[in-house]
Amino acid sequence: MAHLSIIGTGTMAQAIADVARKGGSTVDLIGRGDTTPVTGDVVVLAVPYGAVAEIVEQRGAELAGKVVVDITNPVDFETFDGLVVPADSSAAAEIQAALPDSRVVKAFNTTFAGTLTAGTVGDVTTTVLVAGDDEDAKRLVSDVVDAAGLRAVDAGPLRRARELEALGFQQITLAASEKVSWTGGFAVVA
Amino acid sequence: MAHLSIIGTGTMAQAIADVARKGGSTVDLIGRGDTTPVTGDVVVLAVPYGAVAEIVEQRGAELAGKVVVDITNPVDFETFDGLVVPADSSAAAEIQAALPDSRVVKAFNTTFAGTLTAGTVGDVTTTVLVAGDDEDAKRLVSDVVDAAGLRAVDAGPLRRARELEALGFQQITLAASEKVSWTGGFAVVA
Repeated sequence: MAHLSIIGTGTMAQAIADVARKGGSTVDLIGRGDTTPVTGDVVVLAVPYGAVAEIVEQRGAELAGKVVVDITNPVDFETFDGLVVPADSSAAAEIQAALPDSRVVKAFNTTFAGTLTAGTVGDVTTTVLVAGDDEDAKRLVSDVVDAAGLRAVDAGPLRRARELEALGFQQITLAASEKVSWTGGFAVVA
Repeated sequence: MAHLSIIGTGTMAQAIADVARKGGSTVDLIGRGDTTPVTGDVVVLAVPYGAVAEIVEQRGAELAGKVVVDITNPVDFETFDGLVVPADSSAAAEIQAALPDSRVVKAFNTTFAGTLTAGTVGDVTTTVLVAGDDEDAKRLVSDVVDAAGLRAVDAGPLRRARELEALGFQQITLAASEKVSWTGGFAVVA
């Protein structure tokens, strides 16, 4: 399978690492402040959206040519009433603009960590919605997911990250208001 | 239960009528071109978004004081690549602005007709996400849903219609590209 460098060491970073390893991929987990080079073909930015700019600044050149996975939900955590990216854009689109030589893929922002680790949302196999403009990049990320027994679904071009981030935000608001649990949320039924 | 006037006679109108009747509500189904007065406490605009403006024009005065349910997904069906409402707005917000004396509730736009009729998405009870600024109006619509054995979930203020419409759009793109069926899609797991 693939070799992933995951930047971030939080719950989502660990959960994505577990998924990747379960499917036979190799993983480096790299702390946000760490300057270790990223050696993966796939680099997952498993950090809050607010921390991405610094990584882009530090590692922009290093990320050229690589598949960069944006997992963020750019929620305005002061108001909890919207996103901090422009309404007609997305975190993924902003990151792609900042990393023009990388192939950005949106994934893992609609799955809580608990559902990645469990492999299910309720009784439904956990589905990772994957959006991006580069078909090979999407396939690479999707293969990592599928190999772990989860289900990757192509959600369309990178423009659809706007919708995936709306979905991720809505799901977080439902969990924060205890309408769903952090091991539940949106399941994708084929 | 409630008395609903449903404007529209298509698949969604029929499915919502079935849900309402199952829960003990009474329903008038009114064709788009029909001038029959709406007598329901709850008026469901079960028409495509493009047909709403004419209804607002014809029936604006009549809808004052009523709970108006917007079920639309304002997809740009020419491009299938976005919505026809401003990116920072929603169909529901536009309708509320056009009907300032009505209490607009967003509901039923994230559930395909087949899942309303079946009562399930896969093995999960069909959940109707309900957004609105008037708590009584939301409760009225939610009670109609719950009484039918489905599950209504409060998705927040009417501003969240932006997210619900993104979710509805994403779900339609997944069904149109055969990633999910029209009896599947997003299930909400508690």
